[in-house]
Amino acid sequence: MPAKIRPNERKVLYYETDKMSIMHHSNYIRIFEETRVDFLEQVGMPFENIEAQGIMMPVLSVDCRYKRPLRFDERFAVFSKITKFNGTVLELDYRVISRENGDLCAEGHSSHCFTDNDLKPLRTKNKYPEIYQIFADYLGYEITD
Amino acid sequence: MPAKIRPNERKVLYYETDKMSIMHHSNYIRIFEETRVDFLEQVGMPFENIEAQGIMMPVLSVDCRYKRPLRFDERFAVFSKITKFNGTVLELDYRVISRENGDLCAEGHSSHCFTDNDLKPLRTKNKYPEIYQIFADYLGYEITD
Amino acid sequence: MPAKIRPNERKVLYYETDKMSIMHHSNYIRIFEETRVDFLEQVGMPFENIEAQGIMMPVLSVDCRYKRPLRFDERFAVFSKITKFNGTVLELDYRVISRENGDLCAEGHSSHCFTDNDLKPLRTKNKYPEIYQIFADYLGYEITD
Amino acid sequence: MPAKIRPNERKVLYYETDKMSIMHHSNYIRIFEETRVDFLEQVGMPFENIEAQGIMMPVLSVDCRYKRPLRFDERFAVFSKITKFNGTVLELDYRVISRENGDLCAEGHSSHCFTDNDLKPLRTKNKYPEIYQIFADYLGYEITD
Repeated sequence: MPAKIRPNERKVLYYETDKMSIMHHSNYIRIFEETRVDFLEQVGMPFENIEAQGIMMPVLSVDCRYKRPLRFDERFAVFSKITKFNGTVLELDYRVISRENGDLCAEGHSSHCFTDNDLKPLRTKNKYPEIYQIFADYLGYEITD
Repeated sequence: MPAKIRPNERKVLYYETDKMSIMHHSNYIRIFEETRVDFLEQVGMPFENIEAQGIMMPVLSVDCRYKRPLRFDERFAVFSKITKFNGTVLELDYRVISRENGDLCAEGHSSHCFTDNDLKPLRTKNKYPEIYQIFADYLGYEITD
Repeated sequence: MPAKIRPNERKVLYYETDKMSIMHHSNYIRIFEETRVDFLEQVGMPFENIEAQGIMMPVLSVDCRYKRPLRFDERFAVFSKITKFNGTVLELDYRVISRENGDLCAEGHSSHCFTDNDLKPLRTKNKYPEIYQIFADYLGYEITD
Repeated sequence: MPAKIRPNERKVLYYETDKMSIMHHSNYIRIFEETRVDFLEQVGMPFENIEAQGIMMPVLSVDCRYKRPLRFDERFAVFSKITKFNGTVLELDYRVISRENGDLCAEGHSSHCFTDNDLKPLRTKNKYPEIYQIFADYLGYEITD
């Protein structure tokens, strides 16, 4: 039974801005990663534990659509959702929401596969059932405030 | 008549790697930006000149598909191509090629609009014909070695 | 009378690591900036308010001595202290402490001046007494747990 | 006999700027690293070869004094100089020069030690004479245009 998951939340840092005075668009890709790591910690499967078992989760693809720029020091929350998981491939959606006014600032998606340390794909279902179950449990789970 | 455009080329820097010992996936989004800036300089319309005229080119969307990781110090080239331009919206494709063995390491795409400094969209065709013409000239142009 | 100031605290993010599997040394300089911004917010003078009055605080110098590397996902706290303030120049010390075992991981220092938007130095004492007073009040203040 | 070494040279990238419209001060620390890597390649001892022998060169300390900010797309060169080398500790100075007008934009210094993969210090003189000799040869060498 899934526990309540919080969105990943923080402020835009000064060094994340660019000369347009907005958060540089590449940083949203980094925020998505932060959000995945935070999610895994909240569900009791910290990413470092996954890596300690010799599993890597390289990114296969990522995309982001920018709706409204985030400004320096603006507080935002990232709501992620696992949209696909079959034991080898994992996909997530992300929505970046301003905490100042609730604006949807960006939407994104990433896909990943599970591999060994040589980046060979592996199936988690039989070999790593504990990891498999976490992702299976949270497939489609809606994070809310 | 378009001049010969070179791909954007450099090596992976140490600080661009992560603990998987590969270039962090977010840096490809930055490389795409470097490539746009380099392209504009090569065609005689440096990005700072565009900004000096009060024009911004915010990113509307970006995506990247990762094929084979780049390693520290690996030389790569980015081949970009303008796939759409209508005076207000600009779209580009990118291919990241290893210079060590010719591998296709990543493919991506970005879309942009032209705006004033308040991020209001503007049409370049009538107001900035010099800028309009550059992008129109290079629409579909294939960068080759 | 100074209120209780908390240290700036968070975890090492995945994209902050490098191929030595430690936080890249340049990121400590960024953490010092985060800590300054966090400090200013805690004392009721957010950095954006300072900038809104047409004041900039460029960095004149920075240094860092690395004692023990921080690892991915390791929680740390940064304890800053204003060591000098004369109305025009501001200097701070920083100590980065691991929250896992209390290790001193890095020590640093930065110096800044107050300038207008053209980067001309300015004296805060007469022109911006509210800003002056904040820094004067906290000169030498010890942040503790 | 040392070969002619070139300074490390490139332009400021858009994503390296911050909302003050200058290169963010943390990036100078990264430029110093780029310059070390470039130097090692020029003298025929690429950093990846050093790492391949199980040697790491963590940073012990770094400092930078900022003289005049670099702007977006401004071309700069970094002149480094080995100021100390005793087989275990390595120290370098850096001068960042604008290629637009020759301004000294920043000066810095870094110190490093040679360690094994467990970050234990090691002496290069006996165990890695080829590496030792490179640094000994270039101690005090002046890079010029």
